[in-house]
Amino acid sequence: MKVFVLRLGHRPERDKRITTHVGLVARAFGASGLVLADIVDNKVVESLRKVVKNWGGEFEIIQGVSAKKFINEWRKHGGEVIHLTMYGLPVDYIIPKLRNSNKDKLIIVGAEKVPIEYYKLADYNIAIGHQPHSEVAALAIFLDRLFEGRELYMKFRNAKIQVEPCEKGKKVIKKVEEKKRHNRIR
Amino acid sequence: MKVFVLRLGHRPERDKRITTHVGLVARAFGASGLVLADIVDNKVVESLRKVVKNWGGEFEIIQGVSAKKFINEWRKHGGEVIHLTMYGLPVDYIIPKLRNSNKDKLIIVGAEKVPIEYYKLADYNIAIGHQPHSEVAALAIFLDRLFEGRELYMKFRNAKIQVEPCEKGKKVIKKVEEKKRHNRIR
Repeated sequence: MKVFVLRLGHRPERDKRITTHVGLVARAFGASGLVLADIVDNKVVESLRKVVKNWGGEFEIIQGVSAKKFINEWRKHGGEVIHLTMYGLPVDYIIPKLRNSNKDKLIIVGAEKVPIEYYKLADYNIAIGHQPHSEVAALAIFLDRLFEGRELYMKFRNAKIQVEPCEKGKKVIKKVEEKKRHNRIR
Repeated sequence: MKVFVLRLGHRPERDKRITTHVGLVARAFGASGLVLADIVDNKVVESLRKVVKNWGGEFEIIQGVSAKKFINEWRKHGGEVIHLTMYGLPVDYIIPKLRNSNKDKLIIVGAEKVPIEYYKLADYNIAIGHQPHSEVAALAIFLDRLFEGRELYMKFRNAKIQVEPCEKGKKVIKKVEEKKRHNRIR
């Protein structure tokens, strides 16, 4: 089951940090990629790519594609489309169905106002509670429910940096790059 | 068990939206208040107060107090201090202990770099995974684990606006204020 996050309505000035957090949460909580729809924002993309480079794993970042085209293509290939919104149905009622379906999942996460047509385009409109809070939190809770908490224990391949859990303070392991090591041997 | 969130290192220009999300998540996920430590930012505080006014519940917002003083006072009154950091111990190992202790909890959520002294001041340094992601997500997952998912079903007293869950679209219930009704009757 492949999970992608589609960020809708990103405004570079206003949303750059929130969208970066959305991307980081997508990666850290087990999604395989982020789609920055209908816009290009190289700053956000660069800062996400830097994290992937250092902390490992495979995480695809696509920008500038049409949201609607991407959604339609996703569905054509048999994937489900899920829109996170406080107006939707409670996550706990829908999540068992989503877990069992095993279809690829595209999760739409909007900035402030999402046009009503996306509510209709989505297979599911899902609420993480019905209070105003944060798309960053909504995405994290959704993925945590979908993967049943296992996502916090994922290993990221080819990480240059890793954290060693620690009671008081910071412990970081830095790894020598495989490629560099090969070059030296040659 | 009272839970407060202490936001550390807030920089008004850079962090205003992230800190607002931290405050909204604190409220929506069952905390009783937010402390904006060592700084005043009326814009953030106003936008949070507006949400409380419309969406109900009791949520205290304190700004400009010294982080260290607040932490020390909290502990003097028998409360626990928890710092969320990717360098800490895995949340799932610590959370049963925290649930059982029933002590009031102060959750420290830092902006980019938290001085190492706070790692020592905290009773617990807790990681929501060990990947870089978002303090907004970390706070949401922590509170969701602490309250075992029940927080998504909380009722907020005196709400003027409420959402009615909906499959496609938005349903909002607006309530007439109690006070206004009384005034009319008189």
